[in-house]
Amino acid sequence: MYKEDLIAAYQRIKPHIHKTQVLSSRLLNEIIGAELYFKCENFQRMGAFKIRGATNAIKQLSESQRSKGVVTHSSGNFAQALSLAALQLNVKAYIVMPSNAPEVKKKAVLQYKGKIIECEPTLEAREAAATKISQEEGATFIHPSNDMDVILGQGTAAMELLEEYKDLELIFCPVGGGGLIAGTALAAKYFGNGCKVAGGEPFEADDAYRSLLSGKIESNETAHTIADGLRTQLGDQNFPIIREDVVKIIRVTEEEIIGAMRLIWERLKIVCEPSSAVALAALLREKENYQNKKIGIILSGGNVDLNNLPF
Amino acid sequence: MYKEDLIAAYQRIKPHIHKTQVLSSRLLNEIIGAELYFKCENFQRMGAFKIRGATNAIKQLSESQRSKGVVTHSSGNFAQALSLAALQLNVKAYIVMPSNAPEVKKKAVLQYKGKIIECEPTLEAREAAATKISQEEGATFIHPSNDMDVILGQGTAAMELLEEYKDLELIFCPVGGGGLIAGTALAAKYFGNGCKVAGGEPFEADDAYRSLLSGKIESNETAHTIADGLRTQLGDQNFPIIREDVVKIIRVTEEEIIGAMRLIWERLKIVCEPSSAVALAALLREKENYQNKKIGIILSGGNVDLNNLPF
Repeated sequence: MYKEDLIAAYQRIKPHIHKTQVLSSRLLNEIIGAELYFKCENFQRMGAFKIRGATNAIKQLSESQRSKGVVTHSSGNFAQALSLAALQLNVKAYIVMPSNAPEVKKKAVLQYKGKIIECEPTLEAREAAATKISQEEGATFIHPSNDMDVILGQGTAAMELLEEYKDLELIFCPVGGGGLIAGTALAAKYFGNGCKVAGGEPFEADDAYRSLLSGKIESNETAHTIADGLRTQLGDQNFPIIREDVVKIIRVTEEEIIGAMRLIWERLKIVCEPSSAVALAALLREKENYQNKKIGIILSGGNVDLNNLPF
Repeated sequence: MYKEDLIAAYQRIKPHIHKTQVLSSRLLNEIIGAELYFKCENFQRMGAFKIRGATNAIKQLSESQRSKGVVTHSSGNFAQALSLAALQLNVKAYIVMPSNAPEVKKKAVLQYKGKIIECEPTLEAREAAATKISQEEGATFIHPSNDMDVILGQGTAAMELLEEYKDLELIFCPVGGGGLIAGTALAAKYFGNGCKVAGGEPFEADDAYRSLLSGKIESNETAHTIADGLRTQLGDQNFPIIREDVVKIIRVTEEEIIGAMRLIWERLKIVCEPSSAVALAALLREKENYQNKKIGIILSGGNVDLNNLPF
């Protein structure tokens, strides 16, 4: 069933997204001892894979729903993604953002004509503000990661990767809210040739790791990680998929994230955000288990503040 | 004549280099008001176009010459390029470097098995050291930019770009020692469809601009520019070509270089060195003259020290 859903999602969003490039580096391959294929979603429109899921979700709405707009809460890439996807599809987007969100993030949303609603910086306040907009304006709430249409959209990155490299044995991606890894797991299951999916997660926000251990969705008490896209937790839509189809989640330290980010910048000569580097950091940490394998790595995004680099 | 030489050079080096990607950005196009195609030589082997010229020059040597090695003086990308090209072709490379060259540059040469000869940080000392090696070891001196085989090799980047985008009206590239822009001018002349070539140069090292004005090779008194690849001056091999076939050299300030570099990093999501950004800075400075044109931009290299970024 998900196979057809993924194909349909890809057809639906294809005119609106970039088919991103895949890069390799001889030196990185030597460092890891494996053959790596980096899917460059940092080159994606608005700078991250999130435009895939946002576009798919909006395109699934009825005309009447579209006419009333969409709403989400996010201070990260999904805020920009939903704004841009909505702009392209001529739909109004309401973005609930915490009042302490960096100016650069707000600007990016405004650039895509998203309407920002500020709230207190707590999850409760965010949810309340989104619910309020939804009730008052009739706008459809679209969750950044715990929404099946979003998950399917995010899975199209791995579909493209597997179309180009059919015999990948493994795909690594970062784990934040769980939308990307759940979509990737479905894509690998239906379009891979025995391809497994593993996730990278910061020790500082290891809710997914602990959720797989306990069998129920765990939350993060704190989330002091530079990988700001991965501070969120799993949801009831994506957790069952992750439980079923992700073989492993590897936790990494902040130093490992920065080190992997530096390797990507220096060796691949591309700009990625810390959250993106978590996948490579995870592979690096346990590289002895992956010698000589053909491995895909999803570089989730490239939206960094050049004034605040960790090196 | 140069047309056949360029074709031969390309055939000669093709197995040893990457055919680099060409990137575009809708937002950058909007900022400039033109259609831009960035030739990503920052993705080239060793991180810069210089491997093209170095490989072509070594491959033109006789067996007997190759057996005695090659020598150059450079503290920049050509040092790495000649080392790597020589390593691949099983030739010994002697690299004369000033004693104050950054450790990171020396390391890069050593990584490619280049043999470093240190000298005082003056042009005279460099040349004397290179001549000495040449006499003692019989190694062939290869100049980083003022050598016809090097120039032809560098021209292959524009050949690839024009093969993919046949109707470019203009190509911008940075001007340092003159090898890249001379090669680019030849490639545009023989493989373009009326394609012109323009150069970008820092005000702080504007020898090429002044040389075109005076009609003779001018030197730089000082060269306090962040674009460290562009501190050198033109030579008698490349100057006549530049005089004949380059339509314009536009000078840019240090602030403009850093601004263009930031745009490339933020919009294209790639890592380029300051020297690379000079071409875009030049176009930005005079963008009103280039509205709606199809323009190629050669991003010359991506070797930056992440610990020393200007932002």
